[in-house]
Amino acid sequence: VSNSGHERETQRVEAFSDGVFAFAVTLLVLDLVVPRFDHVATVPEVLSALRQDAPAYVALSLTFATIYILWVAHHGILRRVHHVDGSLLYANGLLLLLVSTCPFPTAFLAEFVDQPAGRLAAAMYSAYFLAVHLAFNLVLAAIQGGHHRAAHGFSDLEIAALRRRARFGPLAFLGAMLAAAWNAWVSVAICAGYWGILAYRSIQRHRHVEE
Amino acid sequence: VSNSGHERETQRVEAFSDGVFAFAVTLLVLDLVVPRFDHVATVPEVLSALRQDAPAYVALSLTFATIYILWVAHHGILRRVHHVDGSLLYANGLLLLLVSTCPFPTAFLAEFVDQPAGRLAAAMYSAYFLAVHLAFNLVLAAIQGGHHRAAHGFSDLEIAALRRRARFGPLAFLGAMLAAAWNAWVSVAICAGYWGILAYRSIQRHRHVEE
Amino acid sequence: VSNSGHERETQRVEAFSDGVFAFAVTLLVLDLVVPRFDHVATVPEVLSALRQDAPAYVALSLTFATIYILWVAHHGILRRVHHVDGSLLYANGLLLLLVSTCPFPTAFLAEFVDQPAGRLAAAMYSAYFLAVHLAFNLVLAAIQGGHHRAAHGFSDLEIAALRRRARFGPLAFLGAMLAAAWNAWVSVAICAGYWGILAYRSIQRHRHVEE
Amino acid sequence: VSNSGHERETQRVEAFSDGVFAFAVTLLVLDLVVPRFDHVATVPEVLSALRQDAPAYVALSLTFATIYILWVAHHGILRRVHHVDGSLLYANGLLLLLVSTCPFPTAFLAEFVDQPAGRLAAAMYSAYFLAVHLAFNLVLAAIQGGHHRAAHGFSDLEIAALRRRARFGPLAFLGAMLAAAWNAWVSVAICAGYWGILAYRSIQRHRHVEE
Repeated sequence: VSNSGHERETQRVEAFSDGVFAFAVTLLVLDLVVPRFDHVATVPEVLSALRQDAPAYVALSLTFATIYILWVAHHGILRRVHHVDGSLLYANGLLLLLVSTCPFPTAFLAEFVDQPAGRLAAAMYSAYFLAVHLAFNLVLAAIQGGHHRAAHGFSDLEIAALRRRARFGPLAFLGAMLAAAWNAWVSVAICAGYWGILAYRSIQRHRHVEE
Repeated sequence: VSNSGHERETQRVEAFSDGVFAFAVTLLVLDLVVPRFDHVATVPEVLSALRQDAPAYVALSLTFATIYILWVAHHGILRRVHHVDGSLLYANGLLLLLVSTCPFPTAFLAEFVDQPAGRLAAAMYSAYFLAVHLAFNLVLAAIQGGHHRAAHGFSDLEIAALRRRARFGPLAFLGAMLAAAWNAWVSVAICAGYWGILAYRSIQRHRHVEE
Repeated sequence: VSNSGHERETQRVEAFSDGVFAFAVTLLVLDLVVPRFDHVATVPEVLSALRQDAPAYVALSLTFATIYILWVAHHGILRRVHHVDGSLLYANGLLLLLVSTCPFPTAFLAEFVDQPAGRLAAAMYSAYFLAVHLAFNLVLAAIQGGHHRAAHGFSDLEIAALRRRARFGPLAFLGAMLAAAWNAWVSVAICAGYWGILAYRSIQRHRHVEE
Repeated sequence: VSNSGHERETQRVEAFSDGVFAFAVTLLVLDLVVPRFDHVATVPEVLSALRQDAPAYVALSLTFATIYILWVAHHGILRRVHHVDGSLLYANGLLLLLVSTCPFPTAFLAEFVDQPAGRLAAAMYSAYFLAVHLAFNLVLAAIQGGHHRAAHGFSDLEIAALRRRARFGPLAFLGAMLAAAWNAWVSVAICAGYWGILAYRSIQRHRHVEE
């Protein structure tokens, strides 16, 4: 198999992954439902219906941001991989399966976060992103695996650093899961805080690369 | 990092952005609902139901056109950027988050424009596109920012002209928002007028480039 | 503007168009609704509900096939265009706006074809595809327009032949629209027949190119 | 027609196919419905509603996995085809039409698998994937067809081996269809087993290529 064949193979996995990431976050909009009334509604009624939907706006923004930052990391890594073998293909498939279902835990959180089932909803939301980040670690492990040694552009030090960094995600969402036993909003705040730290780090890293 | 790596990075951001833009405008069709009856409907009943849905057709066309022209501008600019750093990545992420939710303010406008909450709906629709165009200005600012100086194909004069032109969008939608306090349809007409002017300008500019 | 810049511009319009075409036909599946019962349903009940949905299967297949063949033509033409100017961009935008809404006339046809409003539904379905094919002719006209003379890979003879061939679409759907005044299923049959002829032609043409 | 033109043609068919594949599996998430209550729900009520939806999670995962492995095969083959003629274009169109409707048989299976219509649902689900795999065989036949002889990168031995392997899919899903006459879950287990065998094979094959 020629080098150019490998190149195209990687590009197609990237294109498919980009598609699923982009579609999944765009489908989140279906969780935003325009209030419908069986009568001609007054302005205060409409405003109050919009306000009741506030958890949906928060949940959508949080999921979008988390998936987007994951996509940034995924893209930074995959573009330096020159060859896609079976284990990477399936680890990536598991990641995409999970990413593609993100509108479900998001809508679940939005529906129940301010109800008695709020802590359950927050725990499930955190558990979902825990699973997503474990799958992302699986992708990294598949890249590190022996069959790729010659086929990716990472030094041993770099990939070890990537894997060390990637351990932070599962830990953060495990923490958010445990916090959900106590309070739903604290759990959501941990998820948001995780995103903030990663966004900050990523911007720093990009700066560094350029200097 | 090699030049070819940079090239691919830009292309992937473009591909992801194209996905979200294309997908968001295609999801607008879900706002068009086929009338359902609990009896076998007569032709006049069906026609009258279709006529009542007219605001949905107007709102869909307007949003599609506005997002499309934004995509044209976005595409004209991004294809001359050679390197994507952290701040551009996140400014673009904010833009995509907003673009991906376009079916919501569109459906909201369509539902309430001819009701007492019509001015509220028009104000929110304008506010949504105001936010979209502010995010677009953020993308331009990120490109202009120091880290890109050497990494984009724009002269200082060109990028200053782009930024001057881009200030028109937020002003137009601010105007539409204020007009909504007076009349919903005037506000919608300003949004449509903005689109018409930009389409005309863009065609002129394309002509110019070619000569 | 360099040649490679032009190349990339064309590719991005193609990518965006492919996205809208692919999304729109995939969204057609939302017109297929799994029957729901408020009791545990027996096998005959489920089968009868599926049978009642038969028009939806026919309508989905017909729209998918028509959009697919249009995409094939669109793709065959756009890949030989080297430069995208303003009028082509907007003609293409109009085509995409129409294509993106294909699930709506399809669901409308499926809902009403076997009811008193069936002829209305068939007339609207034909009118929709008439508009789509007129927009496609506009795309061809924009390519033929003076500004492209040097920028596309077609000889004058070829593009005249393309435009002659493209006149067939509007005529066929105008015929289907008129036929709808008489009988809905005849109108649908004309739409299907048009597709059959074009598919046959396209296979012949591909054969020819290769010899 | 130049070689580079052929190259781009193949890439666009790949891009369109990737779009439909990626989009169809992402739309599966719409089958997961957040439970809604007309009162403030207790935790046990929510948990019980989630448990009742278990067949939907199983069905989604199974369809995602089957489509994903099909995409892997499709991608491995198409990237070695240098020219797309009419029969390949239409065979591929039929495959995409079927793939794009995958959320429907999946939702149908999830709704009825634990009801009296469960065997009917399992039979239809298997029949759907039987049709998908027959369409995939048609794609292979179109590639093998005379017009491509010089235009794909497969030796006669390789393509014969591909076609032999591809016969396994229709047989497995025919088996699952027949098994559905006896028991719905056995039929589903055969579908899952088929996927497991192919995933295992594909990983082996990728290993082999690399050595």
